[in-house]
Amino acid sequence: MNPYMEKANKEAEKGMHLNDGGPFGAVITDKKGNIISIAHNTVLKEKDPTAHAEINAIRMACKKLNTYDLSDYILYTSCEPCPMCFSAIVWANIKDVYYACNRKDAASIGFRDDAIYSYLAGENKDLLHLHPIDRENCISLFQTYQEEGGEIY
Amino acid sequence: MNPYMEKANKEAEKGMHLNDGGPFGAVITDKKGNIISIAHNTVLKEKDPTAHAEINAIRMACKKLNTYDLSDYILYTSCEPCPMCFSAIVWANIKDVYYACNRKDAASIGFRDDAIYSYLAGENKDLLHLHPIDRENCISLFQTYQEEGGEIY
Repeated sequence: MNPYMEKANKEAEKGMHLNDGGPFGAVITDKKGNIISIAHNTVLKEKDPTAHAEINAIRMACKKLNTYDLSDYILYTSCEPCPMCFSAIVWANIKDVYYACNRKDAASIGFRDDAIYSYLAGENKDLLHLHPIDRENCISLFQTYQEEGGEIY
Repeated sequence: MNPYMEKANKEAEKGMHLNDGGPFGAVITDKKGNIISIAHNTVLKEKDPTAHAEINAIRMACKKLNTYDLSDYILYTSCEPCPMCFSAIVWANIKDVYYACNRKDAASIGFRDDAIYSYLAGENKDLLHLHPIDRENCISLFQTYQEEGGEIY
């Protein structure tokens, strides 16, 4: 078994037994194999629906490295990232992700990862309701940002 | 203009001028119209790639209300949520979202929202590389979680 995945899975088990959240763990390493962060899901403990293992590991690594750019790092996660975590991984510029269980496994124990993926693939449109309003009043701010050379990340 | 969207847009402008992050703001209200949280993007300031306006607003509202369940709340955001924020909104159980600018507007000033949406719709597969490994070593934890009646959220 991959040693980083083993650590991610042990972290998932630890979080589950602490009742911090669901059975999910993640590890971020550099390309030499040094571990930068290890985290588990803390949604229940922190009452924060965004506190998935991967999000926690990314936030922890960014704090430790004092950057929002994890281009040179690798993420291991005990379950395929949900679309929230997947997108966070992209925003963090991580390019390689190793995962063990998958979205169907998560669905089989009741988590909605697969339902969110379905919505984003164009199905399951009742998941929530998105209402476009007031674009004409807000779009000028984007133009200002661009004109002022605002940073893109 | 919707008064909550006006506040979201003002918050976006404030964050931009503070150089805290991109030009994005969000407001969460209850169904009576009371404002629970107002937040802007703080990716640059906090060096946290997950600190989008909607994520910040959700975390702030959950902290204030001491819950991870925002079923009875509404989110206003100055730009269509990226897939990370969209999924965080689903995990928080928010059902109604009002947005102003859209993913194409965000792309037009350089942000990758649209590229992530494309990946999730089955295109743009080079965005990152996902490698499945070791499922057979990790899946038993999911079974244990279910057998022990672990909470689903």
